[in-house]
Amino acid sequence: MVFLRLWNRNTSPPNGESCLGLSPQCSRHSNVEQVSDQKTDTQNAWLSPEDIAQVRNQVPIIYVDAVPVRVNPDGEVTHIGMLLRQAPDGSISRTVVSGRVLLGERIREALLRHLEKDLGPLALPQIPPEPAPFTVVEYFPDPTISGFHDPRHHAVSLAFVVPVSGDCQPSQQALDLGWFSPEQAVSEQMRKEMTSGHDRLIRLALASVGQLP
Amino acid sequence: MVFLRLWNRNTSPPNGESCLGLSPQCSRHSNVEQVSDQKTDTQNAWLSPEDIAQVRNQVPIIYVDAVPVRVNPDGEVTHIGMLLRQAPDGSISRTVVSGRVLLGERIREALLRHLEKDLGPLALPQIPPEPAPFTVVEYFPDPTISGFHDPRHHAVSLAFVVPVSGDCQPSQQALDLGWFSPEQAVSEQMRKEMTSGHDRLIRLALASVGQLP
Amino acid sequence: MVFLRLWNRNTSPPNGESCLGLSPQCSRHSNVEQVSDQKTDTQNAWLSPEDIAQVRNQVPIIYVDAVPVRVNPDGEVTHIGMLLRQAPDGSISRTVVSGRVLLGERIREALLRHLEKDLGPLALPQIPPEPAPFTVVEYFPDPTISGFHDPRHHAVSLAFVVPVSGDCQPSQQALDLGWFSPEQAVSEQMRKEMTSGHDRLIRLALASVGQLP
Amino acid sequence: MVFLRLWNRNTSPPNGESCLGLSPQCSRHSNVEQVSDQKTDTQNAWLSPEDIAQVRNQVPIIYVDAVPVRVNPDGEVTHIGMLLRQAPDGSISRTVVSGRVLLGERIREALLRHLEKDLGPLALPQIPPEPAPFTVVEYFPDPTISGFHDPRHHAVSLAFVVPVSGDCQPSQQALDLGWFSPEQAVSEQMRKEMTSGHDRLIRLALASVGQLP
Repeated sequence: MVFLRLWNRNTSPPNGESCLGLSPQCSRHSNVEQVSDQKTDTQNAWLSPEDIAQVRNQVPIIYVDAVPVRVNPDGEVTHIGMLLRQAPDGSISRTVVSGRVLLGERIREALLRHLEKDLGPLALPQIPPEPAPFTVVEYFPDPTISGFHDPRHHAVSLAFVVPVSGDCQPSQQALDLGWFSPEQAVSEQMRKEMTSGHDRLIRLALASVGQLP
Repeated sequence: MVFLRLWNRNTSPPNGESCLGLSPQCSRHSNVEQVSDQKTDTQNAWLSPEDIAQVRNQVPIIYVDAVPVRVNPDGEVTHIGMLLRQAPDGSISRTVVSGRVLLGERIREALLRHLEKDLGPLALPQIPPEPAPFTVVEYFPDPTISGFHDPRHHAVSLAFVVPVSGDCQPSQQALDLGWFSPEQAVSEQMRKEMTSGHDRLIRLALASVGQLP
Repeated sequence: MVFLRLWNRNTSPPNGESCLGLSPQCSRHSNVEQVSDQKTDTQNAWLSPEDIAQVRNQVPIIYVDAVPVRVNPDGEVTHIGMLLRQAPDGSISRTVVSGRVLLGERIREALLRHLEKDLGPLALPQIPPEPAPFTVVEYFPDPTISGFHDPRHHAVSLAFVVPVSGDCQPSQQALDLGWFSPEQAVSEQMRKEMTSGHDRLIRLALASVGQLP
Repeated sequence: MVFLRLWNRNTSPPNGESCLGLSPQCSRHSNVEQVSDQKTDTQNAWLSPEDIAQVRNQVPIIYVDAVPVRVNPDGEVTHIGMLLRQAPDGSISRTVVSGRVLLGERIREALLRHLEKDLGPLALPQIPPEPAPFTVVEYFPDPTISGFHDPRHHAVSLAFVVPVSGDCQPSQQALDLGWFSPEQAVSEQMRKEMTSGHDRLIRLALASVGQLP
């Protein structure tokens, strides 16, 4: 039954508009079959580079951040999944699943879309039933405002911890997907591999599930 | 892998000390193999009727309440499971999964134990990774104090919404397990079938997942 | 000390961009002294009617909803404050405090700004220390999608319960501010006076503080 | 009005049954005027040393933990209050406000009682309106089970962040009350001054308010 869901969705979602995906090359993936079975018209949800650049100068952009986790049978988080990604400037960093909420798209749909895009169609994410995020992350071009940083724009991101029970295949956008114990995830070494405040986001996520070391 | 968990546990847990289970007949089920693979000694966790009666006059008793739900692929709650139970006084009412936390037992273990006891060994409950309940229910012998009522004692219950994806077989203690849509669950008819403030608990649970009609 | 805060802020904030305030007449109030002591440049945060109309067709707009409450000394919510407002179409309805988050503005600043604008400068709101809202409200032009409705646009609103302890003076935009007990707030009569799903939002808010009747 | 509350309460509450207070000497303070204006009979809520020793061997004990904080006008936590206490074994450590919930006592009442006892009658704590704690702490005599340790018993503690705006006067039980910035509170030095897992509890509390460094 869970699999039925997956076949109902386009398992090769457009790559556009993920964590690092508001960049120009994303605009050509304006294929929207992926969400066409949902009740909203998102024909215009993907924006041209010029349009997104203009919007960014006018309003905060709404995002979702998802921290994929493995849980044991008691529901305890045992591992955190982190993507290894290359930013447009060539730098490589560890990051969570993250991306924009499109016009007309539900938060849950955005979460599923970005999780399936980044972890592949067999990850079996369990979207939490609660609509409230464990925290709200405010990304600003100025890193001193909130400690969360995005050079491109002011984004408000709803952050969720999402258990995944299936096989994860990082998409071509990610160089790797690694699973780390809570101790590893907050280690000095890992903190250095994360940017934008994502090391802090991981600590907040672990705290929300009671597993911050 | 999820099934492995089940075989690791005793699939015929003792019936004792569930929602209505602090009654005398429960004391004979002092079989503790069920939690023997966990790190705590619960040999003395089940109490004799005399002992539990005395403790109730001294301290509040800590409980867990679990509202079993079905979720759709987007994580939205579509149905709430409610047990039909006969109280010691012969009255019949709808109720959630509920029971005591034993000495030495983790909250998660208590949740799993009571869910497996009431819904059967194939229910596949997904215990939420967060340790914080969606609400804390304070049951008092005096129903006017909090609106939540337990004639036996003052109990403090941590309430969780728990998605279940497997087959539910209500135990012999329950007459039936029914699944209801959010609209049905808050209907006037259903409210009348619930006692102890459980109708309100259902509304609080639905609100916590954004599905209160 | 709390008062000091108030004198540090412009106590006559621009009326623009409140709950019903994305309308044309708001654009002339592009006075930004109000947030000028904060670290971000919001010179361009207020938008012309044409600009906001265009943005609405491109991305979801991020909002905050605040449910003002009175609490007793134990912290229990005793009353909910609701504004009586006239919509652009002339209809009158009960509503919560609500408004847009501006470019460069923190969520907390947006909450304070809208609370002070709608309840006056002496309301003494206690912004909750947690960054996570009690729920996320998704407003769509199509009321069937989420049950929350905004004819103007797709908005994602972070909803907070905010205790206020001072004197509330509804601004000129509101016809009245009324305080209601939980029982009154969920009564059939009150539900009829609310639109856009705000009656449901009130129930979710009351549930989050354990006071849903 | 807030002051009225304080005069309505006994401003010299019995010292018994605080964080370190289930010890024998506490039993003589069985003065219950303090909660006599509340609707429940707690005449028998304080227990003799023999009784509490026996109960501890039978059921988990329900506690509340309160992390007192100072907030700025935007609601952001700027400082965390920590008590310096001497344990019965003579050791000195930093700790949060903590204590038992009595039979017949509401969670909110227990929070207020322990805060007023440990911080004095003029602390003006703002008990959060939400009944749900930010985390649930499970203390065990065996420190390996959950990382939270209490040599005396298995306790389940509901943990709350509580803003205080008044003057704090630590009671005679505490040697000192210190206020620390988030950075100080998680420093290596402070961690060494905390026992029982309270250093971790402070990190979880800071994370819940988005202020974990």
